[in-house]
Order: sequence, then C-alpha cells, then structure tokens
Amino acid sequence: MELHGGNIHRIQRNHGLKRADVLDFSSNINPLGVAESVRKALIDNIEGVIHYPDPDYAELRSALGSYNRMDAADIIVGNGSIELLFLAARILVPHKALIVGPTFMEYERAVAQARGHVSYFRLMEEDNFALHADPLYEELRNGYDLLVLCNPNNPTGCFVEPDLMHDIIRRAMNLDIFIILDEAFIEFVEGGLSVSMAPLASSCENLLILRSLTKFFALPGLRLGYGITGSSHFMEKLLAAKEPWTVNSLAECAGRAIVSDSEYSRRTREWLRQEREFIFGELSTCSSLKCYPTQANFVLLQMKGEISAAEVREALIGQGIVIRDASNFTFLDQRFIRIAIKDRQSNARLTRELKRALEG
Amino acid sequence: MELHGGNIHRIQRNHGLKRADVLDFSSNINPLGVAESVRKALIDNIEGVIHYPDPDYAELRSALGSYNRMDAADIIVGNGSIELLFLAARILVPHKALIVGPTFMEYERAVAQARGHVSYFRLMEEDNFALHADPLYEELRNGYDLLVLCNPNNPTGCFVEPDLMHDIIRRAMNLDIFIILDEAFIEFVEGGLSVSMAPLASSCENLLILRSLTKFFALPGLRLGYGITGSSHFMEKLLAAKEPWTVNSLAECAGRAIVSDSEYSRRTREWLRQEREFIFGELSTCSSLKCYPTQANFVLLQMKGEISAAEVREALIGQGIVIRDASNFTFLDQRFIRIAIKDRQSNARLTRELKRALEG
Repeated sequence: MELHGGNIHRIQRNHGLKRADVLDFSSNINPLGVAESVRKALIDNIEGVIHYPDPDYAELRSALGSYNRMDAADIIVGNGSIELLFLAARILVPHKALIVGPTFMEYERAVAQARGHVSYFRLMEEDNFALHADPLYEELRNGYDLLVLCNPNNPTGCFVEPDLMHDIIRRAMNLDIFIILDEAFIEFVEGGLSVSMAPLASSCENLLILRSLTKFFALPGLRLGYGITGSSHFMEKLLAAKEPWTVNSLAECAGRAIVSDSEYSRRTREWLRQEREFIFGELSTCSSLKCYPTQANFVLLQMKGEISAAEVREALIGQGIVIRDASNFTFLDQRFIRIAIKDRQSNARLTRELKRALEG
Repeated sequence: MELHGGNIHRIQRNHGLKRADVLDFSSNINPLGVAESVRKALIDNIEGVIHYPDPDYAELRSALGSYNRMDAADIIVGNGSIELLFLAARILVPHKALIVGPTFMEYERAVAQARGHVSYFRLMEEDNFALHADPLYEELRNGYDLLVLCNPNNPTGCFVEPDLMHDIIRRAMNLDIFIILDEAFIEFVEGGLSVSMAPLASSCENLLILRSLTKFFALPGLRLGYGITGSSHFMEKLLAAKEPWTVNSLAECAGRAIVSDSEYSRRTREWLRQEREFIFGELSTCSSLKCYPTQANFVLLQMKGEISAAEVREALIGQGIVIRDASNFTFLDQRFIRIAIKDRQSNARLTRELKRALEG
C-alpha cells in the first residue's frame, strides 16, 4: 500500500508536520468539504452507533437507486468501491485480465489477489492518453475474460465519451468478457450522471460499474462506495460472498443525506468549472510543464526539464504542499506528477510554488 | 447472512415496527450505550471525514497497544473483527479446520470461503457446553491445520479458564496447528483483560487473537475490531493482503477515545454484575427454562416445554421484544434461545414477558 490517498498521514509523521500546516493536492477530494446535510446527518445519528447497520442497507440502497434513477436491487454498497473491486475479482477469478492504463493501481492488485494474470492495454502519451477503439478491439480478441476501465481515468483525467464506451462494452460482451467500469469520478464530468453507463447495466449480464462517494462528496474518511450491476446472478454471488456490515452506520446515514443534496452537487460543478479553467490558465503559461486535458477534478502534469517528480514533490513538501508523484503508475515515469484541483486560494498558492520549483 | 445481529432492521421492516418500539435482546450490546468520550470524539472529528483515514492507523493501533499493554506492531485493525477473520482464513488457506462449537457461525463461513473443510469439536449440552481438554487433545491429532475457538463462547456464555486455554494453545502449537481465538466478549469476564491470552501472542508464531470494540463498548454501528499476533511473518501477510482503509475515520477516533475511558469500563462491569444476577434470579424460578451459566453479557436459555424457539420469538415480537432464536447454531435446536443482558427495566420486562409466553 504505497503512495495512496491517505499517505498524507505518513508524510505528516515523517516530516513532523501538523495537518493544518499541510495543503494536500495528492488526494482528489472536493474542496467544498463536508456538506451541511452530511454534518447534520452525522450529528443526528451518533446515538445510532449502538445498533448494527442494516445488513441489507435497504434505505441507503434505495437512496442510491433514486439518485441513479434505477432499481435499488441493482445496487450493492461497500467500504469504498475498493471493497467491491476486490470482492468482484474474488468471485470472477479472472484468468486473463486486460486493464486500460496507466490507471489506478488497485485493479492490478485485485486481479493478482484472485491469482489472475494481468495485461495492460497501453494508452499513449503522444495521444494525450486518449483511448483508441480499434487497437483495443483487436487486443480484446486475445482470450481475455475481464476488462477493467476507469472513466474518467485516474491519473490521466481523460474521458471516453458515452458512445464509444457503449461500443466498447458491447464488443466485450459479445466476446464474453466481463467488464469492470470504475466511474469513481463520473460526477465531475460535464453532464454528470447523464454520461454514465449505469443505464446500460440493466440490460447487460457482465458489467459491474463502481462508484464512489469519496471524491465528489468529499467523504473519503467515511468509506462509502457502491456497485451497479443488472445481473441478478452476479449480484447474488456478490451478496453471498460479502462480509456483513462493511459500511458503518454513520457512513450509511451520510450517504443517504448527501445523494439528495442537489445544491452541493450544483455548487461543486460550478467550482470545478472555474478552478479547472484557472489552473489551466496559470500552468499553460509555464513552458516547463505540459498539462494533460482533464474531465476530472485533478490534472496530470508532465515536466519537461531535468527535475524529477520525487524532487518536485520534496521541494513542495518544504513549502507545506503535498502533490502526487505519479512516477509509479505503470507507463508513467519521473516526469509525471498529479495535482488535485482545490479552492482558488490553494490553487493559486500551488501554481505559484510549482512554477517556482520548476523555474527557480 | 441469516439471523445475525442487525436483523432487527429486517424485523422492523417485516412487522412495520419503529425502532423506538422495539426492545432488542438479540444483539449482545452493552446497554450503557454511547460513552460521552465517544460522543465527543465523533463530534470533534466530523470535519475530518474529508481526509482518508491513516492507512497505517498508527494512533489507533498505539491506543489499542496501550490498552492491551503490548506493542502496537502486534496489532492490526479491521472493519469489525470479522474482516480479520475472513482475511486470516484467506491467507491461511486451511485444509482442515476444527471449530469448537456450538459457536458463532461466521468461523465456518470464513473457512468455507477459503475452500477449507470444517469439522466441529462438539461441546455437550449435559456438560453445560463446557470444554473438556482430553477429548479435544485427542481430536487435534487428526491432521488439522486450524483450530478456532471463541472465549467466552457465543452463544453458550461458557468461559475456558486461562490455565486451560494456555494449555490448549501450547498443544495446538506443538502440532503445528494455527489458532484463531476470538475474544470478542473477553472484557465482560470477571478479571477482564487479565484473563486474555494476549500476553501469549508475543511468544507464539501461530496464534491470532480477535477482539471487538462492538460489544463491550456498544459500538456495533462503527465497525471496529482488531487482531493481535506476535508473528511478524503472519502480520506482514495480513497487511499485504488487506484492503486499505477499511476502518473509517470516525470509528478510528471513537476507538482511540473509548479504550482510555476506564470509567466506562468500570461502570459496565458494575452493571453486568448486578444484571446477570438479576436475570438469573428471575429466570431460575421458572421451571420451564434452564439458564446456562454465563461469563458474558448474554444468556443461553433452554426451554423444557413444547413451545419452540421460533414460537417464543414470534410471541415476544408481538410484545415489541426481539430475542435470538438460537436453533440455527450447529448442535442447538428449537429448544434454545439467547438473550442479551440489558438494563434493569428492560430485563424486568423481558423476564416477565418470557415467563408469560412460556407459562401462559
């Protein structure tokens, strides 16, 4: 478990820093912070921790169903979407998985845990890490039983448009390949849930969509994600193998509250539109950097000079700023860092300090 | 996942009851409820849910280390001890496991998930379900690689004294059998942590002790348990296979607060002493019931008449009281029910209604 979200704790310990002294650009969390609706739900439900959570999570699943305009029976909740990723891998026992990358590294770990073999379909730097369909379709013919994609993709920020994603899923389905599609950042994309593949799930026997309440709703501490699948057969297997009560009762209440908080969603989209533009504006003037276009709340940056990701990261820690050294993502190297998009003041400070670190 | 703690939710749904209308004797939770220290920790840390939990849980493990007077390095935290049970089973991949029962049914499920074969060492009704060492030692010679015990045992309430437990562990060790010892209810026993096997862990290569903060500290909703092992080799395997951040940040804060709340522990012990006596006093006058002696915060009851556990349970639900039909524990049958020990008023109501149900 190296270099994940949450490593801010290790950095604080190692550098003797207090949390208030650190500006964390390494985790992709909505800077609007805890919604008032969540704060209220947490306070109102403190006494409820003396009860086990509902093992069926009926009310939470119903709220998530309404949020996605789908049947609660197609939804399973988890301790972050990562629980469902590992659970799905254990059930599928994939022999040969194809992961589209560079991407989030837990996919590989989940397949490896299930003793499956992992291959990568490589997205190319020179294409801005965009996905091209034809070479993917060709590769899919090589006997895979699992395809894993993240959309929009972490850490590249690249988004596969709905028509193309629809086609990819259809092709994989026809080849009897199970698809795990991680939409952890989907709400950040223009169009939000309307560009999700969730409506496909009900007509698709081998598709699992993963969702997170961590990023968009700024709740990583609560550990709450969910999966969507229209396959009642696969859902039964997930439920049978799942450990009970992995979502705690406060996460359950917060989740129910936040998905009906449309005002928080609206403010988030407004913030992101402005700050994405601000960061691109600031950094595009920096000749020693390339900013990859992003549809998410983070930006992949490529440094053109001699300085390494590790060095930039270390220099910024000296200024109380933590960024993500992206060199350990498969296919990336010491030229790559990733930054979250935060509030204006923080973004201004980051872009200033980053330029100083790069240009002296 | 049938008939577990938390099924109160299903009962409420199926019977159209509100939580306030139901007295739950089916979950073994300390009726002292949420400690003031926990309430404060939760409120103080709400804003912190915007951060991922510390993936190392350094401060929580340190607090649990102090509580147990042992090294934090020997402690791993989990989403309830049940996460660690399943994780351990996946790592151990036991071929042949011996479970001492009747007992908590998730042990069998965890071994089955790891595709291991389960045998039971049967505790006898006529012995009050006490464990006899010699037949166990004989059975252990039959090629087992895993032994699972719960002490004090759920649902029997029976406690194996430290000297005997020590001997069992030593014998199993000598036969290269890994031991999972679930001490989820250990703090309820007279002597509390002083009768735990935790001090043995540091000198024992194949012992995993499971602990829960659910029962004694009345926090089942938060999902927080931990494991103790002195084997750095086994600990490394657990950490390598574990999914990250399964304990949420509010559970983390509550756990740190509660284990240093000695006043809550003292009050709990005082309550239990009084109410255990009260319940036994009330029910021992009931000729149609046998109360099994208990060292925990629950009592196994055996009904002598024609009425079945399912019928008693249904009759009590009609009075707004939920008890545990214990008939689906291996080796138990429709004569057995289990009740939690709660506050005086609730206990008085339960014993009155139970006698009425049994004696008309």
